[in-house]
Amino acid sequence: MSDLAPETATRVSVALRAQRIETASWAYANSGTRFKVFAQEGVPRDPYEKIADAAVVHRFTGVAPSVALHIPWDKVDDYADLARHARELGVVLGTINANVFQDDDYKLGSVTNPDPAVRRKAIAHLIECVDIMDATGSRDLKLWFSDGTNYPGQDDVRTRQGRLADALAETYARLGDQQRMLLEYKLFEPAFYLTDVPDWGTAYLHCVALGDRAQVVIDTGHHAPGTNIEFIVAMLVRAGKLGGFDFNSRFYADDDLMVGSADPFQLFRIMHEIVLADELDKGIAFMLDQCHNLEPKIQAVIRSVLNVQEATAKALLVDHAALKAAQDAGDVLEANAVLMDAYNTDVRPLLRDLRADLGLDPDPIAAYKRSGYLEKVKAERVGGTQAGWGA
Amino acid sequence: MSDLAPETATRVSVALRAQRIETASWAYANSGTRFKVFAQEGVPRDPYEKIADAAVVHRFTGVAPSVALHIPWDKVDDYADLARHARELGVVLGTINANVFQDDDYKLGSVTNPDPAVRRKAIAHLIECVDIMDATGSRDLKLWFSDGTNYPGQDDVRTRQGRLADALAETYARLGDQQRMLLEYKLFEPAFYLTDVPDWGTAYLHCVALGDRAQVVIDTGHHAPGTNIEFIVAMLVRAGKLGGFDFNSRFYADDDLMVGSADPFQLFRIMHEIVLADELDKGIAFMLDQCHNLEPKIQAVIRSVLNVQEATAKALLVDHAALKAAQDAGDVLEANAVLMDAYNTDVRPLLRDLRADLGLDPDPIAAYKRSGYLEKVKAERVGGTQAGWGA
Amino acid sequence: MSDLAPETATRVSVALRAQRIETASWAYANSGTRFKVFAQEGVPRDPYEKIADAAVVHRFTGVAPSVALHIPWDKVDDYADLARHARELGVVLGTINANVFQDDDYKLGSVTNPDPAVRRKAIAHLIECVDIMDATGSRDLKLWFSDGTNYPGQDDVRTRQGRLADALAETYARLGDQQRMLLEYKLFEPAFYLTDVPDWGTAYLHCVALGDRAQVVIDTGHHAPGTNIEFIVAMLVRAGKLGGFDFNSRFYADDDLMVGSADPFQLFRIMHEIVLADELDKGIAFMLDQCHNLEPKIQAVIRSVLNVQEATAKALLVDHAALKAAQDAGDVLEANAVLMDAYNTDVRPLLRDLRADLGLDPDPIAAYKRSGYLEKVKAERVGGTQAGWGA
Amino acid sequence: MSDLAPETATRVSVALRAQRIETASWAYANSGTRFKVFAQEGVPRDPYEKIADAAVVHRFTGVAPSVALHIPWDKVDDYADLARHARELGVVLGTINANVFQDDDYKLGSVTNPDPAVRRKAIAHLIECVDIMDATGSRDLKLWFSDGTNYPGQDDVRTRQGRLADALAETYARLGDQQRMLLEYKLFEPAFYLTDVPDWGTAYLHCVALGDRAQVVIDTGHHAPGTNIEFIVAMLVRAGKLGGFDFNSRFYADDDLMVGSADPFQLFRIMHEIVLADELDKGIAFMLDQCHNLEPKIQAVIRSVLNVQEATAKALLVDHAALKAAQDAGDVLEANAVLMDAYNTDVRPLLRDLRADLGLDPDPIAAYKRSGYLEKVKAERVGGTQAGWGA
Repeated sequence: MSDLAPETATRVSVALRAQRIETASWAYANSGTRFKVFAQEGVPRDPYEKIADAAVVHRFTGVAPSVALHIPWDKVDDYADLARHARELGVVLGTINANVFQDDDYKLGSVTNPDPAVRRKAIAHLIECVDIMDATGSRDLKLWFSDGTNYPGQDDVRTRQGRLADALAETYARLGDQQRMLLEYKLFEPAFYLTDVPDWGTAYLHCVALGDRAQVVIDTGHHAPGTNIEFIVAMLVRAGKLGGFDFNSRFYADDDLMVGSADPFQLFRIMHEIVLADELDKGIAFMLDQCHNLEPKIQAVIRSVLNVQEATAKALLVDHAALKAAQDAGDVLEANAVLMDAYNTDVRPLLRDLRADLGLDPDPIAAYKRSGYLEKVKAERVGGTQAGWGA
Repeated sequence: MSDLAPETATRVSVALRAQRIETASWAYANSGTRFKVFAQEGVPRDPYEKIADAAVVHRFTGVAPSVALHIPWDKVDDYADLARHARELGVVLGTINANVFQDDDYKLGSVTNPDPAVRRKAIAHLIECVDIMDATGSRDLKLWFSDGTNYPGQDDVRTRQGRLADALAETYARLGDQQRMLLEYKLFEPAFYLTDVPDWGTAYLHCVALGDRAQVVIDTGHHAPGTNIEFIVAMLVRAGKLGGFDFNSRFYADDDLMVGSADPFQLFRIMHEIVLADELDKGIAFMLDQCHNLEPKIQAVIRSVLNVQEATAKALLVDHAALKAAQDAGDVLEANAVLMDAYNTDVRPLLRDLRADLGLDPDPIAAYKRSGYLEKVKAERVGGTQAGWGA
Repeated sequence: MSDLAPETATRVSVALRAQRIETASWAYANSGTRFKVFAQEGVPRDPYEKIADAAVVHRFTGVAPSVALHIPWDKVDDYADLARHARELGVVLGTINANVFQDDDYKLGSVTNPDPAVRRKAIAHLIECVDIMDATGSRDLKLWFSDGTNYPGQDDVRTRQGRLADALAETYARLGDQQRMLLEYKLFEPAFYLTDVPDWGTAYLHCVALGDRAQVVIDTGHHAPGTNIEFIVAMLVRAGKLGGFDFNSRFYADDDLMVGSADPFQLFRIMHEIVLADELDKGIAFMLDQCHNLEPKIQAVIRSVLNVQEATAKALLVDHAALKAAQDAGDVLEANAVLMDAYNTDVRPLLRDLRADLGLDPDPIAAYKRSGYLEKVKAERVGGTQAGWGA
Repeated sequence: MSDLAPETATRVSVALRAQRIETASWAYANSGTRFKVFAQEGVPRDPYEKIADAAVVHRFTGVAPSVALHIPWDKVDDYADLARHARELGVVLGTINANVFQDDDYKLGSVTNPDPAVRRKAIAHLIECVDIMDATGSRDLKLWFSDGTNYPGQDDVRTRQGRLADALAETYARLGDQQRMLLEYKLFEPAFYLTDVPDWGTAYLHCVALGDRAQVVIDTGHHAPGTNIEFIVAMLVRAGKLGGFDFNSRFYADDDLMVGSADPFQLFRIMHEIVLADELDKGIAFMLDQCHNLEPKIQAVIRSVLNVQEATAKALLVDHAALKAAQDAGDVLEANAVLMDAYNTDVRPLLRDLRADLGLDPDPIAAYKRSGYLEKVKAERVGGTQAGWGA
């Protein structure tokens, strides 16, 4: 990329080499909407096969060395064995995602359920997830609660918040010193009137009450229309409470499309806040949380990883000194132009060079297609039950 | 209801006696979100049992004498027998809803699919539905297409519109003289980037091209945030193109909650446009299309029917002469006050009196609970497979 | 209201007698959109005349005994004299609203402006407002900042938050022991890309940092589409951080219509949270913040006060014991029905009785119209310059 | 731009040379929000000065040779003289925009006002605009109506539609054979409950009723959240009813920011539909309609023109054959990749080359700044009254 000054190219390359993006085990499984789950050929049938797919993504991209698990979807008898399997394939087990939304008991909520027995059961699951973290060596416990209500009056807001606080506190107390709790918020779905953790304010309030190792997760698809997500990024960074991202794209609601596919400029602005705060490699978890309902899954995950990488590369190109100078001078158009200049740059040549340096194919999608991996698993993975998101 | 002038009470009662609300067979079956379908006890296992439940709703409300079917969910060998079964229970078979969104072939669309063989198959299903209408004596074919795309570039907008127009024309040509095609629109879901019939403009354009017996259906949950639905009602009434409603409530997206539960004032405004245009009994189909994911289904349908009835009663109380006088005088506050006066009236006493006159229990919910019907079907409907929405 | 049990009627009446709603001086002045301000006859020309209008609202409603001021719109030489004028008319001066958005210096922000001299000036204004509070005896300083940016890159999020925190801290330090700072948030407008205090999370975070006398104000028109406002009410009540409301209605953005006119059910749900928490008379400020662009202003304010009163009366009718019982039992439909039963009650007879008891006309709108006040001020208020919102 | 094949570069250059973007006279004048209009130095004081500024934009960009007028903002005694002035400066007068929203008479509407005298006055203004078109040689009459209501019940939807239809018909009848009527729609603002032309469906319905020379204008800021604008572009192109664009950007409502600044990917998708349909130079009017509230106006208009040009260049780079092949094959990821490949290309080098070929400075912003024009008009334009948007 001849346009870049050598120092710039070096600085950007160094940062990009250190970048880590975590893929999600469930992205390799079947998924869909309430209307239909369209099954795809070659989809994994167990956690071992999911990890194999994740390892393929890392093999071709070089920046996706860990894979998040979802419990109980990825429940196995021997997590140490699963971790060993991952290592053999060149990846590690990452964040543990608790799931307290798919049991019949959870119809009216999990940790906020009016029934104390259900709350007890839900908390036990959260604590079981920490046990699993101990076995897998995972750092982060990610909590998303589908808890909420569908009708005004159905349950009491403040009472449910109290139940939530209690459950979080009990789980938090179980964490080890090096473990973190990441609390995710979401505006709506599956609850349609009230969601118990609907916004960053609620998640932040609870995390502050819990302590330093409780942090907020931003899922880019979980906001009301018109929400400025990069503002929330900056606010949480400023407060020391940004634990990670669940990346995906949305046009409408929680569409869970490939990150960067709906609004690549927004993704760039988010990564710009991260780079500006020098938080690219300071502990924030950069995770994908997507559903590839229509498109081939592994290829879609590769595309998503590349999209994050491209947005990051552009963010790294922003001239911070020029930006600050224009901002301090109140030069609205110049400040905007400095940002847009980075965004409008085609960073693909730079990334191709970087991959070549790392011994990777400069074009991961083409290389993956040439590898014949998909054809191989389509042939091998017959019989058994395909893993499904939400199943 | 002592506050009402006798003439008013009589006029309102006459109109309410003539009101007809159609319930949907699938509302009695299990439903849920992509996250989880929570099964309920006593849920029907076949179309005969669904119709039995619908008949119970009519028995207690007196204004729900027909039930819509969804094909293939309600496919039976002998539709004449199903119609006879319905009549024996005091109801009739209503609108036939085509379903071209749950077959693996429809992953990239049904009538707009890039593959002509899939389009052919979808059209064949639509025509099969007209065959069924001939057997059931149904007047209306309701068409909702989940067709759309998830990613920019995935397919071509205008090409898909051409395919859609062709499929609609072929189906329309098959209709009998007394049959209608009702075309439904929806902003998004399950398609997340582009929906082929996303708004009333698109549905209207196609219906105009087809002819008089093609009309638009308004599903109250299918709009972008901030859409003024009663405006669309008025526009379609004015153009002679309002075929019917799929009633339900939403706070966010297509939440499919009980009609009138999220914004009862909006439901009133919608019914006000209907009453104002004297369209309450002129052929517009008033249907429920809801998912009772958490709450008991039959009771929820009764509640929904009552909610429509109450909104209609309030709309009937609007003093049209006073409203017009205030509007013509440009008296903003008085015009608004005339409308609000009707809305703020408690019409439940009036409706209790009406039911008593009709030989019904004044309190349908209480009467239904006392009937023991739910306990009975819970005991009877064991074994077999519960019917499911989306299954 | 013969349907109510006497104990209920008494309990509700006692609560309603204690209710206090504060009207805003600027609601009596001309207002409009960026497209046009339509002037109305009889509009006040100075703060004294605004207070006279506010006193009329109180005279006919009995529940609006205070009026909020906006500085510098309501700047006078002698605030003690203004307070005396108010008292003579039967009202008192209420909340002081700071205005740091209408000076040319504030084009790029007030307390968050890149220019330290502008920040200095803005803080000086905030402190001047506390001086005025000392003179008027006002308890609350309400702060809304239009600060934000229009373009990505225009200024730095975290830097601006730091400036904001500094300004708030300096102003907070100036407050007397019995004075409070109420911080308002707003999604957008006039800033179109980033607003420095866009949501309750941001306002809450700053108020916690400041101390006990800093609390959050909820303006009902300042949220993203789909936001559950009553949830925020409950969260802030639970955290002891709800300072007050700016009531108004919206269909789209910050429309500033009469409260209760767009979604009366939402207003009821908000008041239900207040009543449920027993916070009706514990210090939360219930204020109107509206623009009567098209409709006569005084009459519109009276209508708005009545709307809040009616919503409160309905909220007071909710059977808390029955509600809790249904919630605890997980009876979704019954819990919803308990709430809706109160909402569907026509409380106007009860309120008419209450007014009669208080020596007021049962119909404040009719009485106001009969009073000839508007005709009188139309005749008197000629010459001079009409007061304008935003001017 | 060495990466492009020579044939491609030639094809793209030819198309870009033919592109025409119309700027708006009012963009050079002061503008703001209801909260504040911040005046800028050097702003024009009359239509002649506005045209001078527009000519500067054309001088530096080479693709903005016409300027739209707004009546009565740009009312002059001698339109032939104004046209001559424009020609001398190298530009021509373009679209005539009618304004029926800033007279006190229009408080309750213009062509839909309950008062027939006001409707009469509004129609007279529309017809006066056609007179002006005859004098200026303008092809297009652009109609945007602020008409609507703020409160439910305020006026009657269908009655207002009838009044609207009558006014449009009378105006349409006055058009010459070579003149067009462009009807614009807008969701809300300044009307907050109901807007008489809120969506493309309404505008389309009226334009069909009027005839071939009535077409719809898409203002990119006038939609509900989540609306897929490029779908509307395609629908209107397919129906032969797309008359033009009012380009601008929005994050929330009708923010009127610089086009391409909020969501450049959306702008690209819109231009992609235009290029795909080969409609770049077939009569669709590409206009800017923006408010530069904070930033210097002329520079902002230049930036906006460049943004449209860059989006167009990217759209021209889409490989239509490869796109169609992937679409027809149902290859979701490849089809998306073909589109994204064009979007991700940095077209600025190509545009610099194009400008050099045309004898323009490759960097219009830098050249404009060097020209000293802004300093010159700041010095010259003192005294008199600055022109204001909305004034």
